[in-house]
Amino acid sequence: MRGPSKIATITGSPFNLPAWAELTVRQQKMPLVSRMDRMRFVIRLAMENVERGTGGPFGAAVFEAKKGTLVSIGVNIVTIANCSHCHAEMVALANAQKELKNFDLGAPGFPEHELVTSCEPCAMCYGAIPWSGVRILVCGARCEDAEAIGFDEGPKPKAWARALEVRGISVAQNVCRKEAVSVLQEYKKRGGMIYNPRQTKNTRRYRKPEP
Amino acid sequence: MRGPSKIATITGSPFNLPAWAELTVRQQKMPLVSRMDRMRFVIRLAMENVERGTGGPFGAAVFEAKKGTLVSIGVNIVTIANCSHCHAEMVALANAQKELKNFDLGAPGFPEHELVTSCEPCAMCYGAIPWSGVRILVCGARCEDAEAIGFDEGPKPKAWARALEVRGISVAQNVCRKEAVSVLQEYKKRGGMIYNPRQTKNTRRYRKPEP
Repeated sequence: MRGPSKIATITGSPFNLPAWAELTVRQQKMPLVSRMDRMRFVIRLAMENVERGTGGPFGAAVFEAKKGTLVSIGVNIVTIANCSHCHAEMVALANAQKELKNFDLGAPGFPEHELVTSCEPCAMCYGAIPWSGVRILVCGARCEDAEAIGFDEGPKPKAWARALEVRGISVAQNVCRKEAVSVLQEYKKRGGMIYNPRQTKNTRRYRKPEP
Repeated sequence: MRGPSKIATITGSPFNLPAWAELTVRQQKMPLVSRMDRMRFVIRLAMENVERGTGGPFGAAVFEAKKGTLVSIGVNIVTIANCSHCHAEMVALANAQKELKNFDLGAPGFPEHELVTSCEPCAMCYGAIPWSGVRILVCGARCEDAEAIGFDEGPKPKAWARALEVRGISVAQNVCRKEAVSVLQEYKKRGGMIYNPRQTKNTRRYRKPEP
């Protein structure tokens, strides 16, 4: 079964992954045929990212939609990569394009690709989805679940899912939401860093991670 | 005068730059004190990207807002990097964060940083701006100028500039717009690739580059 040829670890590219990721992928039976199994896999990635302290409580992966073959994974590595673009979805999409040597996952000759993410995308990841070439977006936790622990989802259009559908990208929401939310809560419990938000009236203050 | 310690060329990271970029930066007198001079510099980057055939007609740079010191540059390298995230603004922001070894350009102790871009940001780059830590956004060409040659700006909120202002990021538009638009027109004249758009009713078809 074809899988990512190599999980690149953190040195070099900002989209390379923490060292633990390779083993996690190797231990996962593939392909993942059901949508819920794919979601549970990215939730596991998110939880491992929290437990290992390598970033925010978010995981994502790109699959061949029909067969469930894993193409790439991503976790939030903003802090260790020193790059604010490195949200889980961005990392997964960039690595899928690297794996397939094409900036368009919807290029002629490719099977349909699906982005599975443990939480609905922020404004940046949302804007990146139409350019990536994926045809399906599958989300676990809701925006408001991320906001409930202090993250900021950014200035996203209200009817964001509809705007993707218009572009031929189907959107599934609330897949294993409860399990996805539990990762966010675990992160909060551990005092994880809520980064980025600025000190303006509509956003929140930096919160330093507890030691 | 401090400048980027090194312009990383295209191997390795998806955000590394074409080989010509280093010389272009070295030939430019710094700092650039006026806003128009900064804009003309990124327009030159965009034009060189078109002339060298290394990507789309877009250039960007991060400056220390007050002094005009150059921190990083970016051009659109989607096609040569095989990564749909690699718009000029994303490349410039990632390289500024790499240069300053911080995922937040607005971190305590940093001077105010300004992102100067030859064209208003698409939905993705727009969403990335609040996370980047820049406090000022300066734009040349308008969204509709990019759309006029076939590019798609993505699902961005209508009141996008206002939503940045609310977050404490000031926005200047129409800076040297005419000169910025001339790069877009040059790209079109050369039959440059309009990538990404899908074949749905609201978007446009792939257009292959002319040989």
